[in-house]
Amino acid sequence: MRKLLVEFIGTFFLTVTVATAAVVGTAGPMAPFAIASVLMVMIYAGGHLSGAHYNPAVSLAVFLRSRCTANEFGSYVITQLIAGSLAVFVARALVPGAPVIEPLKLVSTPTVIAELLFTFALAWVVLNTATAKATAGNSNYGLAIGFTVLAGAFTVGGISGGAFNPAVSTTLIVIGKLPVADCWMHFLPQILGATAAAYLFKTTHPEDV
Amino acid sequence: MRKLLVEFIGTFFLTVTVATAAVVGTAGPMAPFAIASVLMVMIYAGGHLSGAHYNPAVSLAVFLRSRCTANEFGSYVITQLIAGSLAVFVARALVPGAPVIEPLKLVSTPTVIAELLFTFALAWVVLNTATAKATAGNSNYGLAIGFTVLAGAFTVGGISGGAFNPAVSTTLIVIGKLPVADCWMHFLPQILGATAAAYLFKTTHPEDV
Amino acid sequence: MRKLLVEFIGTFFLTVTVATAAVVGTAGPMAPFAIASVLMVMIYAGGHLSGAHYNPAVSLAVFLRSRCTANEFGSYVITQLIAGSLAVFVARALVPGAPVIEPLKLVSTPTVIAELLFTFALAWVVLNTATAKATAGNSNYGLAIGFTVLAGAFTVGGISGGAFNPAVSTTLIVIGKLPVADCWMHFLPQILGATAAAYLFKTTHPEDV
Amino acid sequence: MRKLLVEFIGTFFLTVTVATAAVVGTAGPMAPFAIASVLMVMIYAGGHLSGAHYNPAVSLAVFLRSRCTANEFGSYVITQLIAGSLAVFVARALVPGAPVIEPLKLVSTPTVIAELLFTFALAWVVLNTATAKATAGNSNYGLAIGFTVLAGAFTVGGISGGAFNPAVSTTLIVIGKLPVADCWMHFLPQILGATAAAYLFKTTHPEDV
Repeated sequence: MRKLLVEFIGTFFLTVTVATAAVVGTAGPMAPFAIASVLMVMIYAGGHLSGAHYNPAVSLAVFLRSRCTANEFGSYVITQLIAGSLAVFVARALVPGAPVIEPLKLVSTPTVIAELLFTFALAWVVLNTATAKATAGNSNYGLAIGFTVLAGAFTVGGISGGAFNPAVSTTLIVIGKLPVADCWMHFLPQILGATAAAYLFKTTHPEDV
Repeated sequence: MRKLLVEFIGTFFLTVTVATAAVVGTAGPMAPFAIASVLMVMIYAGGHLSGAHYNPAVSLAVFLRSRCTANEFGSYVITQLIAGSLAVFVARALVPGAPVIEPLKLVSTPTVIAELLFTFALAWVVLNTATAKATAGNSNYGLAIGFTVLAGAFTVGGISGGAFNPAVSTTLIVIGKLPVADCWMHFLPQILGATAAAYLFKTTHPEDV
Repeated sequence: MRKLLVEFIGTFFLTVTVATAAVVGTAGPMAPFAIASVLMVMIYAGGHLSGAHYNPAVSLAVFLRSRCTANEFGSYVITQLIAGSLAVFVARALVPGAPVIEPLKLVSTPTVIAELLFTFALAWVVLNTATAKATAGNSNYGLAIGFTVLAGAFTVGGISGGAFNPAVSTTLIVIGKLPVADCWMHFLPQILGATAAAYLFKTTHPEDV
Repeated sequence: MRKLLVEFIGTFFLTVTVATAAVVGTAGPMAPFAIASVLMVMIYAGGHLSGAHYNPAVSLAVFLRSRCTANEFGSYVITQLIAGSLAVFVARALVPGAPVIEPLKLVSTPTVIAELLFTFALAWVVLNTATAKATAGNSNYGLAIGFTVLAGAFTVGGISGGAFNPAVSTTLIVIGKLPVADCWMHFLPQILGATAAAYLFKTTHPEDV
C-alpha cells in the first residue's frame, strides 16, 4: 500500500508535467528538461520506497527480471495508469483557457521504432543502474533514468510524441493528443522494448538473477 | 548562529538569482537553469552545516518531521525572510536602469494548485533525499532538490510565478512582482503542500521517526 | 562476447542519436543535450559490463593505459564501427522524408585542432574518472564523460562537426555529412588526442599502472 | 610539477571554451552550458591530482584555508594565468575569420557587485564541497562547482562578463574583451570574494582547520 502510494505520487507528477509542460505547452521547447527533471527527482525521492518505476514498461522489465511479484506488477500498473489519467484533470485546471489539443499525426513505422528504441533504452538503464548488484549504492541512477527520457524526447519527441511509458501514453490518450486508433503504436513497442531489455539484462548478468 | 549564517547565505543567493535572472530578467528563458543551479550548489555547500533549507516551507516540513526544534524553525524562517527581502536591493544595484517591474496577473485557482503541487514535490524530495535513513550518504540530494524547482519553474512558472518558497514569494512582493493582495495564493498552498509532504513522509516511513 | 554486445548497444544508441538529433536535425539547437545525455546514460548502464567506451579513441586510450588487451581493443573497435554504420539506417527509418544531408564544409586546421582538443579532453576525463585508483567508486564518471561531449559540441560543433569519436565520424561518413576526402581531419587528431591523454595519464599516475 | 601540469590542462580547457564559445561566440546563448560543463569535467578529471582549482581566486581561498602552501599558491596562480593567456591563441586558430572582438562596456558598481557575489559563491562552494571534512568522499563537488558558474553566467554574465576567475579575466584582457583600464573591476572583487569565503568557511568550521 505504501509502495502504491509512492508509485501514484511519482507517476502523477511525471504525467502532470508531461500534460502541462509538453502537451498544453507551458514550457515550450524546454519541456523535455521539465519532464526529465521531474522523473529524476521523483526517482531519487521514491526509489527506496517503491523502486520508483512510475512506468508500466519499467515494472514489466523489473518483473521479468524477477525483482517484483506478479501481484505487485499488476497493482503497480493499475496505479500508474490511474495516476496518468487523473493527471489530465489537474493539467486542465492549471491552464483553464487552454486551446483544444491538436492530436498527433503519427506515421506507424517511425513511431514504432522510436518508442521501441527509447523504451528499450529506458528499461536497460533502469535494470543496470537500479537493480544490478555491480552498481548497487550508486548516486546516479535517477540522473541516468531521467536523462534517458531527455535524450529520447529531444531526438524522437517530434516523431512519436516521446512517451516511452504506457502511463504517459494513457495521459496522451485522455487529453486527446494520442488518437485511440494509434495507441498500439505506443503500447506494442513499449512492451517489446521492455521485454527485450529484461532479456538482454539477464543474458549479460548470468550471476545476478 | 552558524546555522543561521549559512541559511542567510543560501537563501540570499537563491533570491538574488530569482530577482535578477527571472524578475528583472537578465537570464531570459534560461532563468530556471540559473535558479535551479544556485539552489543546488548552495545545498551542496551548506547541507552539512544548516541542513540547507533556504525555504520556510522546507523548514516547516523538516520541523513537522521532527528534525528541527520549534526555536530553530522560527529563527530559520525569520532569517530566510530577511535574506529574501535584502536580495531585492542587491538585484536593483546589479541592474540600475531596469524598467519598472510589471506585477503578475494571477488567477487564483491555477496559482494555488501550481504552488501546492510543486511545494509539495519540493518538500517530498527534501524529506526523502536529505532526511531519510534509507537514503543517507547519497550524493544526489542537491541535484534532486534543485531540479525539482527547474521542473516546477518551466511547467508552472508562467501560471503562478513559480516560487514554491515563502522567502522567494517575499522577494517577489518586495520587488513589486507579486501583489500583496494575492500573496495568500502563494503562502497558503506553500504551507499546505509542505504539511502534506511531512504527513506523507511520516506515513511512509513509520520506522524512521 | 557479453562485452561486445554492451559496446554495440551503447555505441548504437549514441550514433543513432547523433544521426537523428544532430544530422537529420530533429533536436535542433538542443541536439548536444540529447547526445551528451544518451552517452551519459549508456555509460552508467554499461560501465560495469564492458567499461562503456563506445568510442574507438577511448578504447585506444584505455589500451595504451594497459586496461584492456590488444584482442579486446581490436574487437571493441570493430564492434563500435559496425554500430556506428548501422545507426544510419535506423536514423533514416525514423525520418523517412528527410531532405538530403548537406555535407560539412571543413577547413583543415581548425577542424584538426577542434577534434584534437576535445578527443584529448574526452580520453583524459575517461582515464581519470573511470580507470584511476584514486577516483574508484565515484558516481560521477558518466556525468563527467557525457558532459565533456556537451562542452565540445557547443564549442566546436560548428567548426569540425564535433565527433571526438571515430565511430561517430563513421556515422557521419555513412550518412553523407563528412566527406570521405576529409575524414583524416577527424581520424588523425582523434588518434593523436587519445594517445596524448594516455601518455599524460601515465605520467601523472606513476603508481597507478 | 605534476600538479602544475594538471592545473595547466584544466585552466587551458576552461579558458579556451570561454574564449571560443562565449567571446568569439560559437555557442551563442548556450555558452554557459559549455563553460560550466568543461569546468565540471576538468574538476572531476583533476581533483585527485592537483585539487582542480583552475582559478587563482579559488587557489587564494584554499591557501587562506591552509590547504596549500604559499609556494604552491604562487606556482598555481602563475600556471593558471599562462594557461588563460595561451588559450586566446587557440581560440583564434579555431575561428580564423572571426570578426574583431567588441570590448565590454562595463559600469563599475554593478560589475564589482556581480564579480564579488559569484566569486564568493564559487569559493564558498569549493571550500565546502571539496575541502570540508564533513563532505569528504562525495561525488557532487564537480557538479556543484561547475554549476555555480552556470548560475553566475546566466544571471550576471551580461553585467560583468561573468568571469569570477582572474585566469578567465586574463583571457578576456588578452582577447580584447575586457579593457585593461577596467580590469580592477574584475580582479579586486574576485580577491575580496575569495577572501570573504575563506574567512566565513573558517568561522563556520572551527573544528576543521
